Amino acid sequence: MDMNKPCKSEIEYGNFADRLNKLIDEKKNPSVVGLDPAIENLPSSIIEKYKLSGKSDTSCRPLSDASDRPIENIFHAAAEAVFEFNKNIIDATCDIVPAVKLQIAYYEELGAEGITSFKETASYAKSKGIIVIGDVKRNDIGNTCKAYSNAYIGRPDIFGKKIPLFDLDAVTINSYLGHEGVAPFIDDCAQYGKGIFILVKTSNPGSEEFQGLTTEKGKNYFVMGQLVAEWGKALTGKSKYSSVGAVVGATYPEEAAILRQNMKETLFLVPGYGAQGGTADDIMECFNSDGLGALINSSRGIIFAYKKYKDEKNYSKYAREESLIMKDNISKALIKKGIYRW
Amino acid sequence: MDMNKPCKSEIEYGNFADRLNKLIDEKKNPSVVGLDPAIENLPSSIIEKYKLSGKSDTSCRPLSDASDRPIENIFHAAAEAVFEFNKNIIDATCDIVPAVKLQIAYYEELGAEGITSFKETASYAKSKGIIVIGDVKRNDIGNTCKAYSNAYIGRPDIFGKKIPLFDLDAVTINSYLGHEGVAPFIDDCAQYGKGIFILVKTSNPGSEEFQGLTTEKGKNYFVMGQLVAEWGKALTGKSKYSSVGAVVGATYPEEAAILRQNMKETLFLVPGYGAQGGTADDIMECFNSDGLGALINSSRGIIFAYKKYKDEKNYSKYAREESLIMKDNISKALIKKGIYRW
Repeated sequence: MDMNKPCKSEIEYGNFADRLNKLIDEKKNPSVVGLDPAIENLPSSIIEKYKLSGKSDTSCRPLSDASDRPIENIFHAAAEAVFEFNKNIIDATCDIVPAVKLQIAYYEELGAEGITSFKETASYAKSKGIIVIGDVKRNDIGNTCKAYSNAYIGRPDIFGKKIPLFDLDAVTINSYLGHEGVAPFIDDCAQYGKGIFILVKTSNPGSEEFQGLTTEKGKNYFVMGQLVAEWGKALTGKSKYSSVGAVVGATYPEEAAILRQNMKETLFLVPGYGAQGGTADDIMECFNSDGLGALINSSRGIIFAYKKYKDEKNYSKYAREESLIMKDNISKALIKKGIYRW
Repeated sequence: MDMNKPCKSEIEYGNFADRLNKLIDEKKNPSVVGLDPAIENLPSSIIEKYKLSGKSDTSCRPLSDASDRPIENIFHAAAEAVFEFNKNIIDATCDIVPAVKLQIAYYEELGAEGITSFKETASYAKSKGIIVIGDVKRNDIGNTCKAYSNAYIGRPDIFGKKIPLFDLDAVTINSYLGHEGVAPFIDDCAQYGKGIFILVKTSNPGSEEFQGLTTEKGKNYFVMGQLVAEWGKALTGKSKYSSVGAVVGATYPEEAAILRQNMKETLFLVPGYGAQGGTADDIMECFNSDGLGALINSSRGIIFAYKKYKDEKNYSKYAREESLIMKDNISKALIKKGIYRW
């Protein structure tokens, strides 16, 4: 294994679903590493490097000269720790996976400095030729929705200039509010070759209490799925998949099977694998018979795999190993199901 | 009118609903100014001051020496413009209204610098003794949800220290995901005297397509309302209202009446007044007979009132006037309904 070898793939700009499927085929792997760098779970080797010696929260210095920027406060120190961790995880896995997913909550809780770390992590992953999905679950209507879309996949208009900000490949959104909360994102998907994944059936046990209710049009998650499929029609690529995808939890295989049957052209972003209990067999219902259609995320199970081995220093090695195991488990489960794509 | 006079009220820390109701009574005004400072709508007097002369997007200088911090890039210049605008709007209205609501999308589209501007705006409003509500509509589960709550109303745990970050008084959240997306926020409400407003019936026309579907437990928005009332029981204050509130759009008076009848202890945060078409009569259904229970938001109608008068320079004067008109219109409508609280 050469972790320093560049693993940038040639990405054609174009339809998001096509770009993603091309990378999945190149890597022979439909899995995603979730970069959820909860500061309290970072390896002590990194924490010690950035932990502050000062007593003040607003003006302090790192124990070591870890960064070439001066450390301005404790949030800055934490944000630098997160970036170093992410960079090493990306280096260790970017030749294996087609994409990473950044859970923005763990960056937001570090304030403005955390947002800088989010932006730098996204840029770094893109420089390695992998797709970057922002797990932001944003939702609002009209101009406000447009502002969110500008930030993540579009171009904010600053003093009359349209300037890319985070410029991610795709984001997750929540459409409890209806089509006014989706349309601005779809416009940017069309204009800039981006994608969205709309929450349909989430992986938590409590998702049943609302998503599982039965309406005149079917269960709530099913209705949301049908809306997603409808909204996605205009953005179907050459690979026969749409850039408007759905979030469907690994922990609900029966529901996934129903959705899969009724949403043939929709990409499923599948959380809940690994740490949350979803197995490789559970997620098989999320795939179409062509072996595509599902993108399986694992966050803690990969990035904090070092905890199983009680070896904090070699966290990136264990992330790589765990990522290879996940790829292998999914491959085997697909073959068991009679799907031989790769 | 003395816009420089300090208008800080004495706020007791304690139950959020009690704190809010006390300020509503003091100001005799249940309305909120929405700080949605879309950069393209800021008055030209501010834009010209911060607009950049440089050709580069990453290293440029403002036309005037507007800030005591060096302007690092175009996003920074925009974020400073937003902060100056907000500060003047807060100065012009903080003796009239009990609260401001910050729509975070307009800060997020300015990147990390926008988040700094969000934080500074929140601190400034708090220093004037008014309640600060973050309209963030966050939603996730478990640890991720906890990270969001830490950021906005709780305390992120950085290297073992719990440090307040944005430390807002309340936030909006979306609970499509179920109770795992609410519990961490409720914990922080209890611990730090904060509040949440959960999306129930939103003000947009398209809210009907999902929120209006009928389930075995009633319409989706009604079911969500019942969950909110249930979750809120543990946080009812001395004023008989809970710190777990609901978002109910001004544009749906019939639905609001049904919700009001079934959610007596729930505070309604009501968007859609003014620019979106809701009138003072429309929102009357959101109040209880005690004259409390509703907090009416107007954003564009107040902060961009200068557009009606084509007088960009005196934007804060028009925001103040419009805020007084809104207060007066709500008062009159309450009296017409036979409610004489103040």
